[in-house]
Amino acid sequence: MSASKSRKATASAASLLRIFTVPEAPESTLSKIEHALSEDLEGFLSQSIVALEKPLHEVEEDFCAFEIPDEPTFVSDYTEEMMQSLVAHSVHTAAPSFIGHMTSAMPYFVLPLSKMMVGLNQNLVKIETSKAFTPLERQVLGMMHHLIYGQAHDFYQHWMHSADHSLGAFCSGGTVANITALWIARNRLLKADGNFAGINADGLMAGLRHYGWNDLAILVSERGHYSLGKAADLLGIGRNNIVAIPTDANNRVDVDAMRRTAQQLHQRGVRVMAIVGVAGTTETGNIDPLPKLADLASELDCHFHVDAAWGGASLMSNTARQLLQGIERADSVTIDAHKQMYVPMGAGMVIFRDPELARAIVHHAEYILRRGSKDLGSQTLEGSRPGMAMLVHACLQIIGRQGYEILIDNSLQKARYFADVIKQHPDFELISEPELCLLTYRYAPPYAQQALTQAIASNDWDKVSKINAVLDDLTRSIQKSQREQGKSFVSRTRLQPARYQRQTVTVFRVVLANPLTTEQILKDVLNEELEIAADKTHLLAKLAQLCR
Amino acid sequence: MSASKSRKATASAASLLRIFTVPEAPESTLSKIEHALSEDLEGFLSQSIVALEKPLHEVEEDFCAFEIPDEPTFVSDYTEEMMQSLVAHSVHTAAPSFIGHMTSAMPYFVLPLSKMMVGLNQNLVKIETSKAFTPLERQVLGMMHHLIYGQAHDFYQHWMHSADHSLGAFCSGGTVANITALWIARNRLLKADGNFAGINADGLMAGLRHYGWNDLAILVSERGHYSLGKAADLLGIGRNNIVAIPTDANNRVDVDAMRRTAQQLHQRGVRVMAIVGVAGTTETGNIDPLPKLADLASELDCHFHVDAAWGGASLMSNTARQLLQGIERADSVTIDAHKQMYVPMGAGMVIFRDPELARAIVHHAEYILRRGSKDLGSQTLEGSRPGMAMLVHACLQIIGRQGYEILIDNSLQKARYFADVIKQHPDFELISEPELCLLTYRYAPPYAQQALTQAIASNDWDKVSKINAVLDDLTRSIQKSQREQGKSFVSRTRLQPARYQRQTVTVFRVVLANPLTTEQILKDVLNEELEIAADKTHLLAKLAQLCR
Repeated sequence: MSASKSRKATASAASLLRIFTVPEAPESTLSKIEHALSEDLEGFLSQSIVALEKPLHEVEEDFCAFEIPDEPTFVSDYTEEMMQSLVAHSVHTAAPSFIGHMTSAMPYFVLPLSKMMVGLNQNLVKIETSKAFTPLERQVLGMMHHLIYGQAHDFYQHWMHSADHSLGAFCSGGTVANITALWIARNRLLKADGNFAGINADGLMAGLRHYGWNDLAILVSERGHYSLGKAADLLGIGRNNIVAIPTDANNRVDVDAMRRTAQQLHQRGVRVMAIVGVAGTTETGNIDPLPKLADLASELDCHFHVDAAWGGASLMSNTARQLLQGIERADSVTIDAHKQMYVPMGAGMVIFRDPELARAIVHHAEYILRRGSKDLGSQTLEGSRPGMAMLVHACLQIIGRQGYEILIDNSLQKARYFADVIKQHPDFELISEPELCLLTYRYAPPYAQQALTQAIASNDWDKVSKINAVLDDLTRSIQKSQREQGKSFVSRTRLQPARYQRQTVTVFRVVLANPLTTEQILKDVLNEELEIAADKTHLLAKLAQLCR
Repeated sequence: MSASKSRKATASAASLLRIFTVPEAPESTLSKIEHALSEDLEGFLSQSIVALEKPLHEVEEDFCAFEIPDEPTFVSDYTEEMMQSLVAHSVHTAAPSFIGHMTSAMPYFVLPLSKMMVGLNQNLVKIETSKAFTPLERQVLGMMHHLIYGQAHDFYQHWMHSADHSLGAFCSGGTVANITALWIARNRLLKADGNFAGINADGLMAGLRHYGWNDLAILVSERGHYSLGKAADLLGIGRNNIVAIPTDANNRVDVDAMRRTAQQLHQRGVRVMAIVGVAGTTETGNIDPLPKLADLASELDCHFHVDAAWGGASLMSNTARQLLQGIERADSVTIDAHKQMYVPMGAGMVIFRDPELARAIVHHAEYILRRGSKDLGSQTLEGSRPGMAMLVHACLQIIGRQGYEILIDNSLQKARYFADVIKQHPDFELISEPELCLLTYRYAPPYAQQALTQAIASNDWDKVSKINAVLDDLTRSIQKSQREQGKSFVSRTRLQPARYQRQTVTVFRVVLANPLTTEQILKDVLNEELEIAADKTHLLAKLAQLCR
């Protein structure tokens, strides 16, 4: 905090009681800011967030004090400082031109509802601190279960509110959801048997010894989310035992290659614990062939998890849900509500086909989570956690399935539109077609594209590689400049397109989930990239020389 | 949702765009509710939450629809329904008479700040979606590190914002914090060595084989939090390998017993991976002898973790921090900000003494978390997560260390006051003295206390057990009735007091963290329990007969 305070706050029992009982006055700085934010969030964000990027090390200078300040600060002083040092240099994730990541504008009603949620401050770990929030969360999980598995009325009447069962687990995000699913898969495989008390009690080593396996493995596409590797590490399986299976030209896993790998592992005494299908890869938005994966999981008698953190919301569109066919055969499915369900950050879910599934990780404690209680905490990875399910509940009711369908169909249409624009534009190359609303592309002037085509035709892969290397530098450099200019944002990643014989190339990545992103904004993004590219004279010269 | 809607919402692209762009009108139901909540949170909660408890199965009836509604709902209709079905039957966790769990009233400014946080919707997993929130979070972790370890200026200048290091990890709560600490401990112990690539890569089985250990173990007091068992399960170590060590009469772990257990494990080829000290047990608030545990961890050459989820905030009181002496020798420390730091639900932290510690769990991905980036996500269990650190930052600055000191000292004083009242009251028995602001007690009329004293003196443990069994029933029954009446709430748990030769008894448990809880409220809680007890005629008759 700066030392420029006009007044000095002092700590006293009386002043402290005041901050717990007296709300911010309407004329206070914080109230005024909150009012501005309520009246026009987009306006507030555009005006408060500085567009031009400040280098991170300069931002850090405002956050280098390491001692908790001894004396208190007035709320208004604090708020003013934070508007300058924090809000001004945060990221306008809701901007319609911020199309690089999975954030979007949000429906307005989530703001006041979030405040209500915080004010109620329920703790979902146990009924005693959450009451009606517990059945509400179970209902959200039930609705998502129905969206995926479409069971009959009796099923939900029987299981949705059953104390010893759960149709899913609510959590902070897709990573915890994926970890939970694989934790369950591992514990079910190495279940109690004879004199073995089960992996949850006796551990992985004892489990492998008992069942006579050398190791466990998880099979997933090379495009699988990094959280799966994290899960393998955490669960004691090891990152090397998450076996990355090659994908086809459309970034979909090669199921035959997966089957061959499974056979090889079997011969080495390694038990395949789970196979994971990706429904919406983070980098390209493609969907694995889920029915074939379901077949393979049956053959291997292993857990079938689908990571639909991104793609799950598409189930609400009757058109898009065709793409996810086979998901209803998954044992567990991850869906993030803070992605294309337009809920604020911190709302993930894993849904279980079988209401008994979570029993593999159940735990109890004396003062809460008693046996037979409906405490949600007995079947989740996290302990204390907030009532975020309320926001998902609100969006499901207020937007409705039809509303989501429109939002999802529109974003798919926008992605196809943008793909067409890129394909028709001489200076850009589409790298991955949109299956959901994600696509990747790069800047590549006509002469470079021509030179690449010729080099490929004459099998000159060395030349292809050299041209791609310069294009990679260009892509990185353009992406960085565009971000720094602060008008729009695309992200970047690295892919191995079939066209280039799986050479790794750097690409722009866009996610078109924000309903406020217009076709004009998309054209502007390309035009800005063209302008930036024109300034990269050094790299362009190098490219031109190579392509001569 | 009920079918009594006066109007019917329809989904259209235009109406959907509106909910993303047009804020709630000031005269709308939701705006009015938000306004009421901002003007007087306590008034809003007291008026909106129904005091008298409705049976859970009745509450569930409002949450039994399992299909996502096809059609949208108006925000106002939704809000009205939720006020009836959800808010009315939530729990008034902020009430000064709700002293059964670790929730409390919160400072007012967290409400508008939470709304700002939700509006900004940053994603802390990566700089590209969090910018200034990243250094802010690192600063909060740095301040908490300084609170525990008090390193010099240079240390923080060097490490606080270093890309490849971290002074801690922010997470959704103490459970994830404890899991993260033990994950690191496991991975550091089974690190890469010779042809072994490390447990993170090759898994636990290969690690144990390489190092020649039969198993791993974690030693912790029998009062350790249930999340440690969950961690052992998740990490593949197994719940049976979390060895519960007995406690002394004050619920503090017996370090000599822990040492003997470690020796026995060593003889069986089991490697002690970590010992965990509890700084504020969940059930009684007691603090383990941390210096002795630190010595033992040195002897055993193992990780020393301190679970100070509850007690950590007490470090801000110069008086109370004496109780936590030795915590500065811990390798890692868990602290929950949503407990006695008065931050809303969803804010936990684990702090690392050594900035290199988190390298044991580091992970990267192509499109984010690139090597050398300052993306926080490369060293956390969770992936995408919200900017909750902002609320901790605000509380640290606005309340200040001195402010926290007053709050913490007052709650300790209140706990000692309540303990005195209970001890002097003929109808109650104090079971555990408050070390922090937690205590346990039970209703036990004078004749029952006398009978117990006599039975103990004459070594009639069978009689002690019989009397305690009836008192247990009484405690459970009183606690339940008190909760249902909705005026006040104490929780209950089961303990093994030394006085009763470790027979298990059921007790009331109170946590006196809410600054608004007055001495009068505490007296009222006891009086209400007396009144309720007087109605339990059947149990009282049974008790009287036994004590005759």
